Amino acid sequence: MEQIERIKTYLLNLQEKICTELECFEPEQRFEQDAWERDSGGGGLTRVLANGETFEQAGVNFSHVYGNNMPAPATAQRPELADCRFNALGVSLVIHPRNPYVPTSHANVRFFVAEKENYPPVWWFGGGFDLTPYYPFADDVVDWHRSARDACRPFGEDVYLRFKQWCDEYFYLKHRDETRGVGGLFFDDLNEWGFERSFEFMQSVGDHFCKAYIPIVKRRRDTDYSQRERDFQLYRRGRYVEFNLLYDRGTMFGLQSGGRTESILMSLPPVVNWRYQWQPQPGSAEYALYEHYLKPRDWLNDSL
Amino acid sequence: MEQIERIKTYLLNLQEKICTELECFEPEQRFEQDAWERDSGGGGLTRVLANGETFEQAGVNFSHVYGNNMPAPATAQRPELADCRFNALGVSLVIHPRNPYVPTSHANVRFFVAEKENYPPVWWFGGGFDLTPYYPFADDVVDWHRSARDACRPFGEDVYLRFKQWCDEYFYLKHRDETRGVGGLFFDDLNEWGFERSFEFMQSVGDHFCKAYIPIVKRRRDTDYSQRERDFQLYRRGRYVEFNLLYDRGTMFGLQSGGRTESILMSLPPVVNWRYQWQPQPGSAEYALYEHYLKPRDWLNDSL
Repeated sequence: MEQIERIKTYLLNLQEKICTELECFEPEQRFEQDAWERDSGGGGLTRVLANGETFEQAGVNFSHVYGNNMPAPATAQRPELADCRFNALGVSLVIHPRNPYVPTSHANVRFFVAEKENYPPVWWFGGGFDLTPYYPFADDVVDWHRSARDACRPFGEDVYLRFKQWCDEYFYLKHRDETRGVGGLFFDDLNEWGFERSFEFMQSVGDHFCKAYIPIVKRRRDTDYSQRERDFQLYRRGRYVEFNLLYDRGTMFGLQSGGRTESILMSLPPVVNWRYQWQPQPGSAEYALYEHYLKPRDWLNDSL
Repeated sequence: MEQIERIKTYLLNLQEKICTELECFEPEQRFEQDAWERDSGGGGLTRVLANGETFEQAGVNFSHVYGNNMPAPATAQRPELADCRFNALGVSLVIHPRNPYVPTSHANVRFFVAEKENYPPVWWFGGGFDLTPYYPFADDVVDWHRSARDACRPFGEDVYLRFKQWCDEYFYLKHRDETRGVGGLFFDDLNEWGFERSFEFMQSVGDHFCKAYIPIVKRRRDTDYSQRERDFQLYRRGRYVEFNLLYDRGTMFGLQSGGRTESILMSLPPVVNWRYQWQPQPGSAEYALYEHYLKPRDWLNDSL
């Protein structure tokens, strides 16, 4: 399928471009890469930068898996796809900065298609990006959402709001009654615009990630911090782990479908703390995160 | 129901006894306790000792939740229980020692009953205990399994083997192809022996936990260790988090049924590391853990 090659080319270029932009912050550390193959078809290229000055860990994964039988978890909601040939391609990244004033960020763009003789192919695009600050700045969050809106604007006036809301709903920790962070964009099952326009949208989201994230890293990476901020960062990273292992569909689909465990779990932070019953002091900087940022908010019209 | 009171009395005494035995290792730190209530019925008593000399974190929870409607996740497999009154009682504990030569341990005993007018009550006992070493000693593992066998012996010759195998199957990380540790006992849905004998068995398992674990803590707590062992312990704790959030039914049931999040997630270790693609050097002490211990083995007849 010629479209798959076009998407693959875009995704590999995106991976390369993001890694290059992130490496600019690192005097020494570079992305290592591991090419891997999946037993039942396809594989991927995992790129991880560990122990950087700015990035404690950054993982940017490309994968393209395919086969003649969909993995069981993927067909639970769509039994008609069980005996289809399928292709699933995507780039997924998670960045855990060292400085607690630089937010963690995640982005993903993906394409899925299932085919069966005598039936039209079933396909969709998905993706998005979201931001998880520890010590947030309202300006950063507004800028992040402006970039998200810019990515959506050519596709319709309501697109940003629709996928921004979906992001708030998706990255929600029910057992904590907290959003994972301040959101951004999330979309899935996108095919209503037709192939070309949907593909363009996926590219727009992919291309806007660096525009959204890099300026925030530049602004905050040299902020002074003490053990107190580091402790809070490590504690809050526990929430990231909880979300990814309890709720994240990509993680679950990946692990259950025989994806490469180390590539999937590169999303988990290198150092994490849990503290029983820890709560922020009212009025503190840590409290402000909970009070103002970990609930859905219309950042572009109703900022702090 | 008079039986519930008898079980509750046993469980609260067990919690008290275990906390007292663990506190003997601590010159200063004591268990803090939090009594909590569940909105839709029942509550619990959470006891946590943090930052001890021997125990970096030890949590011993009692809970008794009840209500007129079973939480949805519990009835997925048993829809006939959906409109029943239910009671669920248990003690669950997880101990994360500081010294990497002392294994982490987990134990749980629980009772469940659902009742509906004009039907006989549906009830069962469950529980077990399992050990997760970092730098294992074969003697410790054999002793641990001897205690498990002792707990089972009065109930039949095949009981230990049956519940030992169930433990190996349950505490298995499919995405790593590793057992969580060296196992022990796991049982669930136990009612075939009738109430009295099943209750006795649950008590035998509960009572044998300290007999199994305390001698190992005594033997290993003063072992010298360096940063290397500490690093490996923190890395392996990541597997504990992966198991509890990806697979553990108690964790999932608790979080989905509106249990108290902080009490459920006290099972997560206080400090955890993940390292992309880390692997032990062949021939090293760390390698021995993977090679000899993280796969099911008949410890009492076929030890190292």
